[in-house]
Amino acid sequence: MRPTDDQLLARRAAVGRTVARADLDGLAVTTLVNVRYLTGFTGSNGALLLNPDGTGTFVTDGRYRDQAALEVPDLEVVVERDLVAALASRLGGRWGVETHTMSVDTHRALLDATDAELVAAERPVELAREVKDDAEVASLREACAISVAALEGLLAGPLVGRSERDLARDLEWRMLGLGAEAIAFETILASGENSAVPHHHPGSREVSPGDLLKVDFGARVDGYHADCTRTVVVGHADDWQREVHAAVRRAQSLGVRALREDAPVAEIDVAVRADLEDSGWLEHFTTGLGHGVGLLIHEDPFFSARHAGRLGRRTTLTMEPGIYVPGRGGVRIEDTVLVTADEPDVLTALTTELLEIV
Amino acid sequence: MRPTDDQLLARRAAVGRTVARADLDGLAVTTLVNVRYLTGFTGSNGALLLNPDGTGTFVTDGRYRDQAALEVPDLEVVVERDLVAALASRLGGRWGVETHTMSVDTHRALLDATDAELVAAERPVELAREVKDDAEVASLREACAISVAALEGLLAGPLVGRSERDLARDLEWRMLGLGAEAIAFETILASGENSAVPHHHPGSREVSPGDLLKVDFGARVDGYHADCTRTVVVGHADDWQREVHAAVRRAQSLGVRALREDAPVAEIDVAVRADLEDSGWLEHFTTGLGHGVGLLIHEDPFFSARHAGRLGRRTTLTMEPGIYVPGRGGVRIEDTVLVTADEPDVLTALTTELLEIV
Repeated sequence: MRPTDDQLLARRAAVGRTVARADLDGLAVTTLVNVRYLTGFTGSNGALLLNPDGTGTFVTDGRYRDQAALEVPDLEVVVERDLVAALASRLGGRWGVETHTMSVDTHRALLDATDAELVAAERPVELAREVKDDAEVASLREACAISVAALEGLLAGPLVGRSERDLARDLEWRMLGLGAEAIAFETILASGENSAVPHHHPGSREVSPGDLLKVDFGARVDGYHADCTRTVVVGHADDWQREVHAAVRRAQSLGVRALREDAPVAEIDVAVRADLEDSGWLEHFTTGLGHGVGLLIHEDPFFSARHAGRLGRRTTLTMEPGIYVPGRGGVRIEDTVLVTADEPDVLTALTTELLEIV
Repeated sequence: MRPTDDQLLARRAAVGRTVARADLDGLAVTTLVNVRYLTGFTGSNGALLLNPDGTGTFVTDGRYRDQAALEVPDLEVVVERDLVAALASRLGGRWGVETHTMSVDTHRALLDATDAELVAAERPVELAREVKDDAEVASLREACAISVAALEGLLAGPLVGRSERDLARDLEWRMLGLGAEAIAFETILASGENSAVPHHHPGSREVSPGDLLKVDFGARVDGYHADCTRTVVVGHADDWQREVHAAVRRAQSLGVRALREDAPVAEIDVAVRADLEDSGWLEHFTTGLGHGVGLLIHEDPFFSARHAGRLGRRTTLTMEPGIYVPGRGGVRIEDTVLVTADEPDVLTALTTELLEIV
């Protein structure tokens, strides 16, 4: 669902408090997805000058005059062709800027156009975005439900004789038909030995009996992304496929169960890798374990053995270990999960058992 | 078509010569689309260290080891988790960096990790990308042909009683079915008074007789984007619709005919606006006149009365004047055009006459 005005207000108030604590006179929000999060604006060019009390001014260009009036009714809206000039003329004192996304050239232009002191803002909006509010959870839940239903439809078959590209397209059409506003990212659909390539582009290879079929896909709803992977066997699985799938499934299940409020992120990463080492497959796990997911398909937090933080309640993350054996095949299992104080809430609710699609 | 190794080599050699002329020891290409242009790499994380002689080193992370070997066979490939560190350790002397896209934080991290002098590179790859080679023209031509065929299919009807969202989805499915690898951008499909919103999101409004129907859409092929807009009337046009459409059509036709090698960009912008002023509609033309199109849907050059340059041969641009009357309706006509020394080559070859779809 689209956030209510009250939810948007609460988001701005929360980030405003961070701005106040950092002793800033304001925060220039120029990262488009952060602007959307704080204002509801869905256009492609806009910025928010956020005051510590949560009030602010929204700046966009003439193309978005009407859309801004509709989508951002509760903020002062300034329409100017040159966003940098519009921002610069409104800064004073000590302002935070989003140096993790602002280009060197834009930063230089801002510095040249204002007397304000510009300070690296340390990603306060990304931090706030890690914890999802009710509107966000509802959108993610719907995106995941659509994704799962679409995959179930695809796996009802037939699969044999169809190209990867045809199957990927079919899956995407199903998501759109079920109400997705868009696909969340380009579908990864890999068959046979292609399944060993973690981010394979679907191609002309036709699916045959005995193939592993790895499908990494998702729907987008209200700007929120689902992210789900299942790997099935077309026909009957052989022993090697069973072994690899079982190893991934055990590691993934362990990882999902560990997603709980206050869990140290690094410990989860270490534990899942240790499990894959126990089963003898760690050397073939060559990607990241998972990532936050929301308005971006990849967002904070990212799993890593060096992550110093703990999981917050209402964070949504993927858990996606995999085993990729070049030239032979690969298996990945991935869920999008909502962290709670208790049991993890798996939004992509679909069995992780090895499915043999005859 | 995917660029051949020789085409990629020619692109790197051309940019390398610019690097040499700027007296740089190399260029760190970190803008992903520029990396793709120079290497053929289609993944989501990679960088190219380009030497003045056109040789170079490609850097990516472990997820893309296999894909890099496949897509970038003719360059040294370095696989490292931390791209900034991988770059920094290989810089020496005086290197160009892409400060128009590199974030302030990444720039700071690079500066801290190397003794090399880092110099703003003035967008040499974007400049090269303005002029399309044969592979690029072929991909753009195909993307435009698919787009036009899809719209013709949609306009065969029925239209009345269907929602904007349903029609947009139908159009997108047609493009995918005709061989698009993806849609180029989110379809703008606006009916009735919604057509007055330049970048309207298709919604639940159902199309009725008498509506203007504005469709701005495109297919993507090999990473290249088509961009096309047509505005039709559902049923019979009234006098006002005819007048507005005729004014846009006259301005757009004048603009397309002006797209020719060596034409000053600013003069074209001024001429089309003057035409809209003559017809009395200039105040309702609130967007840009057009933009380069290629690996990005919006890329250099951008039309503006302040643009100091001239059009290069083999540049591809959109020409898209429009009239938007809030609360009443709007018309936009847009083509993707290839600039030649002679007549402009309209890639979105579809009539711009006012179509009345009964």
